[in-house]
Amino acid sequence: MAKKIILDLDTGVDDALALSYALASEELDVIGVTGTYGNVLLETGARNNLAILELFGRTDVPVYAGLPHASTRDGFEVLEISEFIHGKNGIGEAELPEPAGEVADGSAVDFLIDSVKQHGDDLVIVATGPMTNLAAAIRQDPGFADNAHIVIMGGALTVPGNVAPWAEANINQDPDAADELFRAARDVTMIGLDVTLQTLLTYEETAKWRELGTRGGDFLAVATDYYIKAYETTAPHLGGCGLHDPLAVAVAVDPSLVTCLDINMKVDTEGETRGRTIGNEERLNDPVKTAKVAVGVDVERFLNELMTRLTKLAESAK
Amino acid sequence: MAKKIILDLDTGVDDALALSYALASEELDVIGVTGTYGNVLLETGARNNLAILELFGRTDVPVYAGLPHASTRDGFEVLEISEFIHGKNGIGEAELPEPAGEVADGSAVDFLIDSVKQHGDDLVIVATGPMTNLAAAIRQDPGFADNAHIVIMGGALTVPGNVAPWAEANINQDPDAADELFRAARDVTMIGLDVTLQTLLTYEETAKWRELGTRGGDFLAVATDYYIKAYETTAPHLGGCGLHDPLAVAVAVDPSLVTCLDINMKVDTEGETRGRTIGNEERLNDPVKTAKVAVGVDVERFLNELMTRLTKLAESAK
Repeated sequence: MAKKIILDLDTGVDDALALSYALASEELDVIGVTGTYGNVLLETGARNNLAILELFGRTDVPVYAGLPHASTRDGFEVLEISEFIHGKNGIGEAELPEPAGEVADGSAVDFLIDSVKQHGDDLVIVATGPMTNLAAAIRQDPGFADNAHIVIMGGALTVPGNVAPWAEANINQDPDAADELFRAARDVTMIGLDVTLQTLLTYEETAKWRELGTRGGDFLAVATDYYIKAYETTAPHLGGCGLHDPLAVAVAVDPSLVTCLDINMKVDTEGETRGRTIGNEERLNDPVKTAKVAVGVDVERFLNELMTRLTKLAESAK
Repeated sequence: MAKKIILDLDTGVDDALALSYALASEELDVIGVTGTYGNVLLETGARNNLAILELFGRTDVPVYAGLPHASTRDGFEVLEISEFIHGKNGIGEAELPEPAGEVADGSAVDFLIDSVKQHGDDLVIVATGPMTNLAAAIRQDPGFADNAHIVIMGGALTVPGNVAPWAEANINQDPDAADELFRAARDVTMIGLDVTLQTLLTYEETAKWRELGTRGGDFLAVATDYYIKAYETTAPHLGGCGLHDPLAVAVAVDPSLVTCLDINMKVDTEGETRGRTIGNEERLNDPVKTAKVAVGVDVERFLNELMTRLTKLAESAK
């Protein structure tokens, strides 16, 4: 039986790749997408999710709207650097038709809570934006923290951050929410910069999507090329773009793609290093570890899986 | 054949335990002790090394004086917190007779360089203070970085620091030296707070040393009890004192006591997080990894080894 999955996305080029990876995976049953802010505004992300689902013929997947900003803030504006990396429309200025479908009734937080209650261990939640929706679910229903299986793209444990020397972008949008998640949740896998900056895509791969001559291939190629181009400026030493969000989905499909450190984590919420993901020294000697932090990744196998799955999906969307 | 070892120490209570562990290990041939500053002044550390070697009947081991302060500073003063943890005399106010022996002629840095040239792969250097002497050896002889096998106690990768949220005490004394070490050296094993704060000693163990009724047992018990008492104030959540420096020696004897992450490391030398040990993002995708960072430790086996070895040594020093 396929594993049920909910994606909590701030779509975003690599969120688009993550959603595509999930749709392309026979091992997964995408039961819904919840929207968050971050790479883009909540509304833009929801629009992108609907448009991508329509592109790939999956209008059966509901899209829920989550919270529009961190609970510690009054609002949210897209950072200049996010716009530089993902484009003004969030999907690298790739053009997709205005979606016919609309955001589903009901809140993303309720949908997350209800789904965990209903599906328990058969469900995995992959969150690739700020942890705002997840923290709200924990606050609303303590059972959520005990029963949800969560994979996040976010944080950096053994490498520097990308928005500050100590902070990664998703965590930095709402450090308090991420700290709540790490302290309360029983099962969180952290796919951070430690591994995502090891998995790189280049123009060589996107050329294969373009060559398909399909709408799906065009979309993936145009969006990803914009993203690769931004990386030439922001991280020229890498020689490609980091496959942050799709790696998190790939790990939900196959945890053996990464090697993990079992550890109890926290996020610094005060002081100079606000936004840092780090081991919780007060739970260092607790034999129960509630987080798995990926510190190694089978790069070749993941890139193969990504190219095989996304190419097949892109081919199908004539 | 016993493995040759040089200990680079700022002795310090846990340095005293590290030296004792080395002397108690049949697998090791202690060919010299080099002195550094940190827990104490250079002179105090040298005096303690000589006194401990005499206590355990090992006046054959030469003690060399290293550099008295970081190359980026004009001098060095013992921090109040160091005095609180190690006592004014560095060995927890334990009383040892004024040593008859003296510091050997020649510099610690030359001794380190010459020993690596002479013994190559048969030698391991364990450094438990600031990395000032090691960085000086690298600057003086680039071959040192290529050929030395080094185990350091210092740093914190997956947990917060102990002198700042991002910095561990040994690294913080001379971040530039530690950064030079990580960038140049081909083989460094980092035994940081990640593992040393998992290995705790309590009054229950030191009572066994006291019961021996020997000078050796008294020394270990008095010094360590002082150290445990300081931990009750500085880190009450631990319930014991961290066995920082002796764990580094134990790993030199038996690397299988820890599980390590292969990684290329650096130390932040500028900005708010000066003194932080973290993966070097510019060498993240270099398949050659020059550091091993311990992230897991077999606590029970190490504590057994420590108690067996130190108790036997303490028994021998009537």
